[in-house]
Amino acid sequence: MDAVTLTITTLPGIPLVEPGDDLVQLMMDGLAAGGLNLQAGDVLVVTSKIVSKSEGRLVRLAAVKPGARAEAVAAEVGKDPRIVELILSESRSISRQAPNVLITEHRLGFISANAGIDQSNVPGYSEYVLLLPVDPDASARRLREQLRERTGVEVGIIISDSHGRPFRVGTVGVAIGVAGLPAVLDLRGQPDLFGRELRISMQGYADMIASTAQLVSGEGAEGLPVTLVRGLRFPAVDGSARDLQRDPDHDLYR
Amino acid sequence: MDAVTLTITTLPGIPLVEPGDDLVQLMMDGLAAGGLNLQAGDVLVVTSKIVSKSEGRLVRLAAVKPGARAEAVAAEVGKDPRIVELILSESRSISRQAPNVLITEHRLGFISANAGIDQSNVPGYSEYVLLLPVDPDASARRLREQLRERTGVEVGIIISDSHGRPFRVGTVGVAIGVAGLPAVLDLRGQPDLFGRELRISMQGYADMIASTAQLVSGEGAEGLPVTLVRGLRFPAVDGSARDLQRDPDHDLYR
Repeated sequence: MDAVTLTITTLPGIPLVEPGDDLVQLMMDGLAAGGLNLQAGDVLVVTSKIVSKSEGRLVRLAAVKPGARAEAVAAEVGKDPRIVELILSESRSISRQAPNVLITEHRLGFISANAGIDQSNVPGYSEYVLLLPVDPDASARRLREQLRERTGVEVGIIISDSHGRPFRVGTVGVAIGVAGLPAVLDLRGQPDLFGRELRISMQGYADMIASTAQLVSGEGAEGLPVTLVRGLRFPAVDGSARDLQRDPDHDLYR
Repeated sequence: MDAVTLTITTLPGIPLVEPGDDLVQLMMDGLAAGGLNLQAGDVLVVTSKIVSKSEGRLVRLAAVKPGARAEAVAAEVGKDPRIVELILSESRSISRQAPNVLITEHRLGFISANAGIDQSNVPGYSEYVLLLPVDPDASARRLREQLRERTGVEVGIIISDSHGRPFRVGTVGVAIGVAGLPAVLDLRGQPDLFGRELRISMQGYADMIASTAQLVSGEGAEGLPVTLVRGLRFPAVDGSARDLQRDPDHDLYR
C-alpha cells in the first residue's frame, strides 16, 4: 500500500477578528502570507471563535437579566447567573450539573460544557462573552461558497470547537460546522485488506480533522485560528455537523 | 505568530505482523522504505492491532469455555458467548449493554465497546480473535527504548485504538499506550494571547495525535499501521495513557 502524507499548516498573519470582518479575505491574506495556494481537496479548519466574532455573537454581560431558573441553577453550580442565563438560552436542556460544571444539550444538538460560551480571550471586549455561531453549518457553507467564488477552488470547511468528554481527561477538537466533506466517513460494507467486511466502520472523520488542527492552533488562542489540512482522501460527500450527533434514542449515556 | 506545520506520514511496506515479530525492525524498515530518518521530537503512532499481534495476544475461539455469566450476558445482548467470556475477562465491569452492544470498563481503565477485542481482519487466524496488549504503556516504553538503542533518536510513541463515544457518531483515534510525550497537555496557569489565564486548558493531546494518525492509517486496516507525526512541539513530559482516564468519582456519565 502506498504511503500517505498529510501536511497541516496554520495560516500566518491572521489578525484579531472584529465583528463584520470579511473572514474569507483574512483567510486569503493568510494563505498569501504563508505562500500557500488552495488546491482542490484542501480542508480549512476555522475556529468557532473567529467565526462567532466575525458574526458579531458578542453579548455584553451587563445587559443580561437572569431569569428565575438561571438564578436557581447558578446558585446550585456556583456560576454567574448572567452566564447561566446565556447557557440556558443557548441550550435545549441540562445534561449534567455539579459544582462549577454545567453540561447541556446545545440548541445545535451536541452535548457540551457551558453551551460553548467563551468567557476568555475576547480582546477589547472584557465585559462581553462570545456565543457560538447561530448556524455553524451555514457559516461553513458560506465560507466555502465565497472561497470558490473568489479563488475558483473547491475546498472543505470545518468550523471547530473544543469539547470535553465523558470518561476521558482533556478537551479535543470537534466539528460543529461542516461543508464540502463528509462529517462521518461511512465505510460499512467496504472490504478490509482481506476481503472481509469492516466491522467498525463509521469514522468521526470531521472530528478527527478538527482534533488534528487543534494540535497546532492551540487551546483558546486566536493567533492561529485557521489551519490548512492537505492530503486527505475523502469521497465527494457534502456532510453536516449534525451527522456527528447520535440520535438520543440510541445513546446509552444520556 | 509564526505558522506551524505538521507532516503526517504513514510508513510504507510494513508487512502483516506475526506473533514474535520485531516491531522495531519493521518500523525501521518502513522508515527506510519511505526515505525517512527519525528526528528528535518525532512521534510514531502504532496501531494496537500490530502490537497485540507481535505480542501474541491471539486467542483461539474454540478454546474458550464461556462461564455462566458470559452465557447470560451473551443471551441478553445477542453475541457469541465465547466472545462475551473474553470481553468480561478483559473488563472490570459492564458500563452499558443493549442488543449487540456491550460497553465495559476495560481492565486498563478506559470505557470501550467489546473490550477492544478485534474479531476482524486477523489474516491466517480466522478462528482467532485479538485481545489488546497486556500493558500498552509498557509496550510503548519498550518500543521507545529499543528505537533509542538502535537509532540513537528519542521519539514519542503512541499505541492507538479506535473508540466510539457517547453522544457523537463515529469512532475516533485514542491513545491506549504513551511513552516519551505528554498524554494530557496541561496548559493551566499559562497566559493566553492577551495575558489572561487560559480557562479550558487541559488538552487530550495524545488522543488528538492518535486521531490524526487514524485519518491516514484507516479503520481496521493492517496495511498502514505506523504513522510518523513530525513537527509537534511538546514539553519534555513522559506521560501515560492512564493520564487520559478520568477518575470515576469525577465522571458525571458513569
